[in-house]
Amino acid sequence: MSIYVDLNSDMGEGFGKYTSGHDFELLDYVTSANIACGWHAGDPLIMQKTVQNALTKGVSVGSHPGYPDLLSFGRRHMDITPQEAAAYTLYQTGALEAFAKAAGGNLQHVKLHGAFYNTASVDERLASAIIDALLSYHPRLILLGLSGSPLLALAHARGMRVAHEVFADRGYNDDATLVPRSLPGAMIHDPKIALERVKRMVLEKKVETVTGKTIEIQADSICVHGDNPQAVAFVESIRLELEKSGIKVQNLDSFI
Amino acid sequence: MSIYVDLNSDMGEGFGKYTSGHDFELLDYVTSANIACGWHAGDPLIMQKTVQNALTKGVSVGSHPGYPDLLSFGRRHMDITPQEAAAYTLYQTGALEAFAKAAGGNLQHVKLHGAFYNTASVDERLASAIIDALLSYHPRLILLGLSGSPLLALAHARGMRVAHEVFADRGYNDDATLVPRSLPGAMIHDPKIALERVKRMVLEKKVETVTGKTIEIQADSICVHGDNPQAVAFVESIRLELEKSGIKVQNLDSFI
Amino acid sequence: MSIYVDLNSDMGEGFGKYTSGHDFELLDYVTSANIACGWHAGDPLIMQKTVQNALTKGVSVGSHPGYPDLLSFGRRHMDITPQEAAAYTLYQTGALEAFAKAAGGNLQHVKLHGAFYNTASVDERLASAIIDALLSYHPRLILLGLSGSPLLALAHARGMRVAHEVFADRGYNDDATLVPRSLPGAMIHDPKIALERVKRMVLEKKVETVTGKTIEIQADSICVHGDNPQAVAFVESIRLELEKSGIKVQNLDSFI
Amino acid sequence: MSIYVDLNSDMGEGFGKYTSGHDFELLDYVTSANIACGWHAGDPLIMQKTVQNALTKGVSVGSHPGYPDLLSFGRRHMDITPQEAAAYTLYQTGALEAFAKAAGGNLQHVKLHGAFYNTASVDERLASAIIDALLSYHPRLILLGLSGSPLLALAHARGMRVAHEVFADRGYNDDATLVPRSLPGAMIHDPKIALERVKRMVLEKKVETVTGKTIEIQADSICVHGDNPQAVAFVESIRLELEKSGIKVQNLDSFI
Repeated sequence: MSIYVDLNSDMGEGFGKYTSGHDFELLDYVTSANIACGWHAGDPLIMQKTVQNALTKGVSVGSHPGYPDLLSFGRRHMDITPQEAAAYTLYQTGALEAFAKAAGGNLQHVKLHGAFYNTASVDERLASAIIDALLSYHPRLILLGLSGSPLLALAHARGMRVAHEVFADRGYNDDATLVPRSLPGAMIHDPKIALERVKRMVLEKKVETVTGKTIEIQADSICVHGDNPQAVAFVESIRLELEKSGIKVQNLDSFI
Repeated sequence: MSIYVDLNSDMGEGFGKYTSGHDFELLDYVTSANIACGWHAGDPLIMQKTVQNALTKGVSVGSHPGYPDLLSFGRRHMDITPQEAAAYTLYQTGALEAFAKAAGGNLQHVKLHGAFYNTASVDERLASAIIDALLSYHPRLILLGLSGSPLLALAHARGMRVAHEVFADRGYNDDATLVPRSLPGAMIHDPKIALERVKRMVLEKKVETVTGKTIEIQADSICVHGDNPQAVAFVESIRLELEKSGIKVQNLDSFI
Repeated sequence: MSIYVDLNSDMGEGFGKYTSGHDFELLDYVTSANIACGWHAGDPLIMQKTVQNALTKGVSVGSHPGYPDLLSFGRRHMDITPQEAAAYTLYQTGALEAFAKAAGGNLQHVKLHGAFYNTASVDERLASAIIDALLSYHPRLILLGLSGSPLLALAHARGMRVAHEVFADRGYNDDATLVPRSLPGAMIHDPKIALERVKRMVLEKKVETVTGKTIEIQADSICVHGDNPQAVAFVESIRLELEKSGIKVQNLDSFI
Repeated sequence: MSIYVDLNSDMGEGFGKYTSGHDFELLDYVTSANIACGWHAGDPLIMQKTVQNALTKGVSVGSHPGYPDLLSFGRRHMDITPQEAAAYTLYQTGALEAFAKAAGGNLQHVKLHGAFYNTASVDERLASAIIDALLSYHPRLILLGLSGSPLLALAHARGMRVAHEVFADRGYNDDATLVPRSLPGAMIHDPKIALERVKRMVLEKKVETVTGKTIEIQADSICVHGDNPQAVAFVESIRLELEKSGIKVQNLDSFI
């Protein structure tokens, strides 16, 4: 039996004249693109262009909704209600879907952004409202989120398709949460170590935590970045290494 | 053979704590609701609530996209490109459609707002880009616009469903454009006269202009307002009078 | 020796075509106006008009800075840093001061808004950054805030002029914080009781809390509202009653 | 008698996580900084940092107000009223002045941005409202604008200090307006030619237009850019060449 994994990346995160990331090059290696929807980043022209580029290169597209806070790139926590969380997700996802449909494609998934991602991963009231909204909107959409999070557990229990994502460059705590960026061990800087960890997560479903313990982890998708040419080259190497190990690198929809 | 007409109104034009209009009461009388999409007015919670109320009361919903200018309520002209016009329309229309679908409904139509409406009515480059975008997105959407406008002529020529709207309370020039609000004759203040004009537009396809001339006009839909309880009562009286005259007041989708 | 008190109210809290409150009428009774600065509400035209009206009626003006969140009217908590808190306060206060100076007046005070007010009242890191910024900008500005709050204690310790505000229509906890709106006892609905409480706070520096205990409280200013004609009439009656009791109702600058 | 010229550059034109330009390096060569005020670009933290850096390096600061249109970087025309133009200028200028004062400095000048700059240069109703507002606010502020423009003529006639700016890298029409970027001759690409033109404008008050004619032009300030390291190096060479020619490169306030 084959082992599959998806490579996802956040994209379209410029705004107006501001650009962000090497999206076009990165689209040669990832299989799913999480596209900013104009709230934490992104604007209609960038969304349209990013969707078109992704679909042209055979990459599946998903919405990447964030808080209404361009000023912080959606990175600050905001006390929103479950009703707001649901409505904000629908608004942004619908906006992105319009570009997907106009380009002859479909929406594959939804992945929340930044502080919205962090809060919804563990806040059951927010999670519940978001899941219900998405199910009422598109029952086949895949929810891509933090591996092992309460958000994904709840979504799965309600019959939603879910995909667990892991990070190549981040350290893990013993409870499978990420080590905060402010603490030692948060980042995996050595590309070789990162690569080994990724392969182990996909093949063995295991990762070594920041305390040295080995824990179980599910890796349906690996989150990668294209901030600079080196990052893009690293993504290329991840993809090649995974394929060399016999893993099939495909979009989520093909195996979730 | 029956004569049909639709009654449409702009709705959901509050923002955050700011409310606007007597939408809920008005929904008892109109057949199509043009719902603001968060740019000139409206926010996700208001959009969701307005869509739900409309569908519950059997009123068809459409998007009401405007310029990105909440500060002027979308009433100021902005020099946007055809590409921007198309992308802004898709973004806002997709956002609204998400709420329609999540509420178990569909999007019936698109009607542009304010300065965007005025410019796109006559600017063929903008019109063309908007029409192409909407056709690529949803070939069955109805474009509701100024009766006799170049926008609708072009949309019709490209195979799009179009609906010509007239105004009960506005004066017309000899070329079927509206008398600008700054000029005498812009507003029809007497409800009885307004009512007579509406009936004539629907039954005879004729209206008397500000110069006293009688011109041809197509009235698929009548645009009405619910700014205050008097306005809502006037809409009720329009509907009753039209029905007394044997005209069927129905949503656009049923007869366009 | 005379006893003084200021009456303050939040003003200019509309946006674009949206209006909010009966500011013009209320300016006949208050002595200090906290004017929204365009972030949680307000826009340049409204700011200018409100400043002009206030100065014409002899009411002192202050800035009323809020979070960058028009969508919630600045009522949602946002995780901002001390540096952001300071810079956001300066930005909005400077913007308002321009209108005060252009109208021939001066800025008397600063009062934070909504969730920003609540957080800065008790978060010492935010408070410290805001105080330092204001002192470097205008050493004579008065900081108007929650009576007895750590914010005012710290500002006073650093040599800033401070004014303690109390609320006519709100219940107090034993520690002089406000009873949250979600709990019983949050609102004082009976105008007569509210009036008696206000007089006692000003004359005796005492208030009965929600538990029935009597605590000390300093009342340099009373926060009042002008949401509707009844509210304005209530403010008029507060002012008349205070004056009948021999209290001088004057702006902060005259006695702080 | 000495000949003086100022070197000005637009700065602080990032937003949130988006950066823009090599401001810090450029501050070693320019004498006046036009700092974005949060509307077309810039945010409070960036404004504060840019003001501090400029003052530390002895560069005078001015406000750089733009349209409320971050999406287009303030480059699209918007139909604003004279009252709006005045209020928008005051709002942004006041916001910037707060940072200047908090950093122990003063505001030297105002320079409008983008489409606002272009429109106000020639629209007398907008120009008049802006000038009156600035005079009522700060009678000693310098208005920096397009050399020879009606805006500056009107400001001068009303007693405002004005500074005429020229562009090193732009072609001129016979009426001293800039050749639009869409037309041939809009840009001067050869640094040597640009340098010669600049020196001639400052020393002889003359420039050769796109038609080959020589016209009079006043050059109180030269507008330069720091988009990339090459641009910064070019500014350094302009400054050195001007100084070698005996021209004193100083801030506007010292000689206007």
